[in-house]
Amino acid sequence: MRLSEDYKILLEEKDIPTSWYNIQADLPNPLSPPLNPATKKPAGPEDLAPLFPMDLIIQEVSTDRWIEIPEKVRELYRLWRPSPMYRAYNLEKELDTPAKIYYKYEGTSPAGSHKLNTSLPQAYYNKISGTKRLTTETGAGQWGTALSIACSFFDLECEVYMVRVSYDQKPYRRIFMETYGANVIPSPSSQTKSGREILEKDPSSPGTLGIAISEAVEIAASRSDTHYSLGSVLNHVMLHQTVIGLEAKKQMEKADAFPDVVIGCCGGGSNFSGIAFPFFTDILNGKKIELRAIEPTACPTLTRGKFAYDFGDTAKLTPMLKMYTLGHDFVPPGIHAGGLRYHGESPLLSQLYHDGYITARAYNQRDVFSSAVLFARTEAILPAPESAHAIHGAVEEALACKESGESKTILFNLSGHGHFDLSAYDNYLSGQLKDAPLSDELLEKSWSTLPEL
Amino acid sequence: MRLSEDYKILLEEKDIPTSWYNIQADLPNPLSPPLNPATKKPAGPEDLAPLFPMDLIIQEVSTDRWIEIPEKVRELYRLWRPSPMYRAYNLEKELDTPAKIYYKYEGTSPAGSHKLNTSLPQAYYNKISGTKRLTTETGAGQWGTALSIACSFFDLECEVYMVRVSYDQKPYRRIFMETYGANVIPSPSSQTKSGREILEKDPSSPGTLGIAISEAVEIAASRSDTHYSLGSVLNHVMLHQTVIGLEAKKQMEKADAFPDVVIGCCGGGSNFSGIAFPFFTDILNGKKIELRAIEPTACPTLTRGKFAYDFGDTAKLTPMLKMYTLGHDFVPPGIHAGGLRYHGESPLLSQLYHDGYITARAYNQRDVFSSAVLFARTEAILPAPESAHAIHGAVEEALACKESGESKTILFNLSGHGHFDLSAYDNYLSGQLKDAPLSDELLEKSWSTLPEL
Repeated sequence: MRLSEDYKILLEEKDIPTSWYNIQADLPNPLSPPLNPATKKPAGPEDLAPLFPMDLIIQEVSTDRWIEIPEKVRELYRLWRPSPMYRAYNLEKELDTPAKIYYKYEGTSPAGSHKLNTSLPQAYYNKISGTKRLTTETGAGQWGTALSIACSFFDLECEVYMVRVSYDQKPYRRIFMETYGANVIPSPSSQTKSGREILEKDPSSPGTLGIAISEAVEIAASRSDTHYSLGSVLNHVMLHQTVIGLEAKKQMEKADAFPDVVIGCCGGGSNFSGIAFPFFTDILNGKKIELRAIEPTACPTLTRGKFAYDFGDTAKLTPMLKMYTLGHDFVPPGIHAGGLRYHGESPLLSQLYHDGYITARAYNQRDVFSSAVLFARTEAILPAPESAHAIHGAVEEALACKESGESKTILFNLSGHGHFDLSAYDNYLSGQLKDAPLSDELLEKSWSTLPEL
Repeated sequence: MRLSEDYKILLEEKDIPTSWYNIQADLPNPLSPPLNPATKKPAGPEDLAPLFPMDLIIQEVSTDRWIEIPEKVRELYRLWRPSPMYRAYNLEKELDTPAKIYYKYEGTSPAGSHKLNTSLPQAYYNKISGTKRLTTETGAGQWGTALSIACSFFDLECEVYMVRVSYDQKPYRRIFMETYGANVIPSPSSQTKSGREILEKDPSSPGTLGIAISEAVEIAASRSDTHYSLGSVLNHVMLHQTVIGLEAKKQMEKADAFPDVVIGCCGGGSNFSGIAFPFFTDILNGKKIELRAIEPTACPTLTRGKFAYDFGDTAKLTPMLKMYTLGHDFVPPGIHAGGLRYHGESPLLSQLYHDGYITARAYNQRDVFSSAVLFARTEAILPAPESAHAIHGAVEEALACKESGESKTILFNLSGHGHFDLSAYDNYLSGQLKDAPLSDELLEKSWSTLPEL
């Protein structure tokens, strides 16, 4: 129970980073360029301009190591940043491990997750470029919430295409977004060609994230005052999230510690990259650190995906990206970590994983929830199911240390709270939660849809 | 949009108070004693001993001005304390008011509200006195959540009697408590005499807070290893909550400001007392500060209640307290601010209100939600419906300043977030929210149940 000096490691406001760290400056092998989905030629700024403001397009391709955070964005970061870091003393004691476990907590943001780190700059750059409206998609709702809040700050209209099954089953997330003034539309909808085509075939389609992306992209591309906003995968999103790791490095220093393993859960890659990328410079400087991404066995993009060009959406409207992918038609089983149910992966993270600088592990959701409940009861915070994957990764590592007698220092990112995920906890506590294994056959079928180049 | 130096006012961990402020040392008129419900004679420690450990009984009657916070409790306060204070620049700008609005935010606690400030010491004192199990009641669920977390920290069993209508309608709150290991029982239940009597008359009784208290008290009184825990009303609860105001005073000082008005929402009185009581010494020292409690028109304990001895529960098992009350049989209309739906009031707060040191105002819930949405869109945080009463009080005061041209400094307590109250926001946003006015007849009928002495 006794809490030591490094139990909670806080920074001051002056410690909020003034620049984001752009890992593109330090990549051992450069990224393959995005391709125009029609011509399959490298996509230039003109291909991206219907969707994004020029500032973000420049960030997407920049190789400058440091990109200054605009003063207005930095001021809004002050709403909740610097975020706290904790030493998980109670969890360590419960596990009886010689490992030291630290975690960075991003759930104190008004959106409840790390997603506000990028929705704020995205709304800002759109605002100053004259955009009136942003469209986006959301599955479980974390990203839609974060963009709704950012748009309310910058007086932008916000149109969120929400996967219909979530729209129907998770009304709280919808209402949360509406409270901030967003227009939330169940997807597939009759407002887009992509949506209408799906509805004609299946009027009661439950929707997928891939369809919702198609709808949001289609609307943005067709209206001159409207842009599109994405909460993960793209390079500029990874860039914005590096505030997490930059703060974490200062906090580890303050605690007079340095991680042997840095762990994050991984869907499109934004929260893992956020905490892990700033430690990449230490790896280049010869330090031995493992950067470990944790994904669900139900959507094992890194551990069982292919490194190939693929579309980001079902209707093949987005540029093609070279990334680890399970195939753009892949529909993962309905696990509770909705934020990790994406077929693709950040190209930056994919390249580094391909080159051996990042490791990955996949876990079953019942094991993940077991660690989530243990964490809540020892460390008090109720984690989101996505973030609980990182917790489970840390627990597994701490138990391995117990086995080997090693006293490793583990750092993980607790990307958000689970206040909107309690039905998942109910499922687990009542013994009804099932694991969702994937067959090789399903994966092979999905890979067969990968586009020819 | 520009955020100034006093936008977010943070303290360091060393600024967490080392003692609670006990306003009983400074009361101009002493409290009337609690009475034994059977004998109607002043209740002594022996009357309270079946329910509470001796440390809390001593705090209940102590007139020491400062009561030291145990080291273990202070260490656990570090989970989220000191809590932040904000200057509501965006809200001020939106209201176009010359007033300065500051708010203290208690929603960053793992329980999501100020309730953890008292559940932790209550669990601690019970643990060191040998208690094995705590019982309590909960309506909307804020208090049950806070006690569940505290019990999980101190390895105490936790038994929560949850008003059946909330148990059925708000499963997320129930699951939240169960995740921390609590046993949540819908009330009325067949486990107690009080519950069985109600169920015999009405097998489908939706329950009330008064019935749930009766059940929790009955179980605690009948088992030697079990105590009872209350989240508001009692003197020791007000005492523990003074950490809020003690920190707020340091923060105002740091911002080089001092409040003209201190505002809190008021149900049983714990969050209002928490922020307001520490400023009472300034009033005694001649400073002009208004301490203003905000309550719902649907449950107007201070503004329309009687100052009289009454029971805390329906079955008349609790000691009788001299307090503002609407009558222990009063069932308020089903407004969304469940935490403000209690017929009684803290005796300390009641005495000070009676003596003219505290003011009170009552507002309708539609106006309250209008301010809640305005606050979310300008200050980003989604407030609990209870806390939104304080926001509305501050907004009304700021608009009065706009009218008069005064530049008052307003401080209010934002006691918790509204992540579990989104159906209420949906109701409001869809135009279906109704106000719930009270007739004089209903109040007079309720007063007629006040006990004769």
